Amino acid sequence: MGNVQPGIRMVIGIQREERSVWERRTPLAPVQVKRLVARGVDVLVQPSVHRAFRDQEYRDVGAIIVHDNLNEASLVLGIQGTTRAQIVPNSTYGLFSHTIKAQAENMAMLDAMIEKNVRLVDFEMMINSGGESLAATFDRFAGIAGMINILHALGLRLLALGYDTPFLKIGLAHTYKNLNEAKIAVRQVGLEISANPIPKKIGPLTFVFVGKGNTSKGAREIFGQLPHQFVRPIELQHVAIHGASDGIYATVIRKIDYLFRMDNERVTINEYMESPELFSSGFANGFAPWASVIVNCATRKPGDPVLLSANDLRELTCPDAQPTEGLPYRLLAITDIDRDCQGSFEFAKDFTDMGQPFCRFIVNKDGGIEKQTGFSGDGVIFSAIPYLSNQIPREASIEFGEQLLRYIEELGMMDATAPLREDELSRTVRDAIICSNGSLTPKYKYIEELRKNVNY
Amino acid sequence: MGNVQPGIRMVIGIQREERSVWERRTPLAPVQVKRLVARGVDVLVQPSVHRAFRDQEYRDVGAIIVHDNLNEASLVLGIQGTTRAQIVPNSTYGLFSHTIKAQAENMAMLDAMIEKNVRLVDFEMMINSGGESLAATFDRFAGIAGMINILHALGLRLLALGYDTPFLKIGLAHTYKNLNEAKIAVRQVGLEISANPIPKKIGPLTFVFVGKGNTSKGAREIFGQLPHQFVRPIELQHVAIHGASDGIYATVIRKIDYLFRMDNERVTINEYMESPELFSSGFANGFAPWASVIVNCATRKPGDPVLLSANDLRELTCPDAQPTEGLPYRLLAITDIDRDCQGSFEFAKDFTDMGQPFCRFIVNKDGGIEKQTGFSGDGVIFSAIPYLSNQIPREASIEFGEQLLRYIEELGMMDATAPLREDELSRTVRDAIICSNGSLTPKYKYIEELRKNVNY
Repeated sequence: MGNVQPGIRMVIGIQREERSVWERRTPLAPVQVKRLVARGVDVLVQPSVHRAFRDQEYRDVGAIIVHDNLNEASLVLGIQGTTRAQIVPNSTYGLFSHTIKAQAENMAMLDAMIEKNVRLVDFEMMINSGGESLAATFDRFAGIAGMINILHALGLRLLALGYDTPFLKIGLAHTYKNLNEAKIAVRQVGLEISANPIPKKIGPLTFVFVGKGNTSKGAREIFGQLPHQFVRPIELQHVAIHGASDGIYATVIRKIDYLFRMDNERVTINEYMESPELFSSGFANGFAPWASVIVNCATRKPGDPVLLSANDLRELTCPDAQPTEGLPYRLLAITDIDRDCQGSFEFAKDFTDMGQPFCRFIVNKDGGIEKQTGFSGDGVIFSAIPYLSNQIPREASIEFGEQLLRYIEELGMMDATAPLREDELSRTVRDAIICSNGSLTPKYKYIEELRKNVNY
Repeated sequence: MGNVQPGIRMVIGIQREERSVWERRTPLAPVQVKRLVARGVDVLVQPSVHRAFRDQEYRDVGAIIVHDNLNEASLVLGIQGTTRAQIVPNSTYGLFSHTIKAQAENMAMLDAMIEKNVRLVDFEMMINSGGESLAATFDRFAGIAGMINILHALGLRLLALGYDTPFLKIGLAHTYKNLNEAKIAVRQVGLEISANPIPKKIGPLTFVFVGKGNTSKGAREIFGQLPHQFVRPIELQHVAIHGASDGIYATVIRKIDYLFRMDNERVTINEYMESPELFSSGFANGFAPWASVIVNCATRKPGDPVLLSANDLRELTCPDAQPTEGLPYRLLAITDIDRDCQGSFEFAKDFTDMGQPFCRFIVNKDGGIEKQTGFSGDGVIFSAIPYLSNQIPREASIEFGEQLLRYIEELGMMDATAPLREDELSRTVRDAIICSNGSLTPKYKYIEELRKNVNY
């Protein structure tokens, strides 16, 4: 990023996040604001008591805390959506708008932005030259946090089933000062497991990671601190049965590994993209029975088969299903780190949250599935916290801000009141503009169609 | 402890704890077993996968892991009670029997011990020359763990109410490797609070510690790591209203501070012991309205007034009760570290546990009190985990073992088949013998009377 063009004053506003008290992230951390201020940019910050950085930290690097609105800003940055009242007319917005699937809860905001002549750039749709979305940073941290949390839960679940294990020493992700401290803590647990293996009666512990993207990489960044052995998907069943009874095994599977064509033809992923209706999922029968912990890092699109249905859960938790010597059944815990939490697990109707990160799904006497709390009793522990990177918010924000900074001049120099000149924009920014100059851009016109098909 | 008398073989058994999977403590840690073995004592250990020390750790110091029973032992040590089938006839038992209030759940064990000619020494009733029970070690650790947990909860509760605070960095007690690590973590949070005070809108945070014993000392050992100011009980209201809005205040109160005679006579605690019916509690009106966090460390005896009734909770959480600028009401959290959890809070009918350490009590539309989960929404966070020292089990066991070791020779040399020679025993041991030679000892004969008055 060079200096700002002389004669033009760039004013960037950082919004207060009002959608959720759990939202602690910010698009630009003080470290980035400092660099912008040094280059002559004015940075306005709406004060917040639940942002992971204190107002004073922004003030200290030269930002101006504005108590009223961000109307002075030509570029407003945020994480989640905003409200009609807060929207600054004729400005550019950069945030995760969650509008591209015509999500009902964000359509009023989109309408207001169109009406107020806002140019909306959606961070999720900003894809860099490496093919990676700006969201990738948060995905990685979501994977990290989700993995830490489920290891914490594993410790409590195993204790509730009678086993004191080193997993008990792993805290909830949000209690670690930073990623490094969290990794060290997991590594220490790993060393303890190496020295004092987990009880053989628990049998091999097997982790199934669904997905290979940034979320999955983040999760494996943490898992990798434990003594472990990765095996090919096809080997999972073998190690679950014949592996070292104090071993920790893992496999990573993608759609191509668990989807099959109902006509038994060979699968290619392109075919699936074109004709999902020809495919069925072999996850529940082929992988889930051999999993101690399922770590779902794949985003489920509408039409994708679920990973586990209610009936699958019934079978996986029936007392004679895949018994191991010292456990009622193999499956201990599931974490759904899917970015959109779109129902990969049929029985999970709600999210969990930071304050209540886990629940337990049990099959009741009538065969129905019930959600319970606590770690004791039948069932499988489940976690699905939205926006998990909020559990490591400072580092996630800093890394996100670094990525965003590469586009900040381009975003900040746009004039939302002038016609959109796509040829002057990078592809990354151009392809992420949802609306501009009072209407949806051609690429996103389809949102109108989607809305017609939905009852609001 | 000198060497064991020549010619006599002392065989000590350490039982597996079967009462609760959360029971991870042990009366003698490997470090003490090592010293006993060096002095010629045989130590037998029943294997356990939920004890905080691995079987191998005992084996490494010379103990013998016995897979069947402890029948070779003349002295059997444990933490919680045992079962009829496990009881070794004609032996001495040392454990927390929880029989002296004729607790229904332990009467079958007591009967079996009497029948099997066991000499039962109750650890709780072993009072040393300083007037302190052998339970004091565990009380201290319970206070420590309870305080860490409620600070963890405070972080989540304040975030759910809109405030990101450094308390979020405090983990659950069981995730810390040891006390020192936990203290350092809390101290780091304290330093962060000193540098970046809590938002002024939260108002002064006030902690009320009920009780001055070991539990309270343990709790204050952790609390003391935060920047804070202790005030006299009478000053609590003043600092709650006029204290620094980013300050953390605390007071310690005893019965004499909050009980008053209904005839307005001056209170002495001896009078209360003699005639509790003359007294009433001023806690709900005099202290609770000025408390952000209530830390109950006092054991409630039958007949003692409750600290908070359901109606008190209604008043404390009514929207215009003691408002602070940025919170719906002052009271945020209650932890009941009372050793027996005997209903100091009328609305709390059940314990919480390690896997579900917190609940939230809210007043519903009909004025009834409901228990909910999670940190979001109305109400007050509550925690009451029994045997809290299980969250720091290794250190708690080591410190307990050190105390127990002072009496081990006396306990181990007793012959439960010979008549009880009280004059040969220390007062500490003598006063803790519940039964011997087939009957309750005179001091504990009253248990028979108590049982007659209870319907089992």
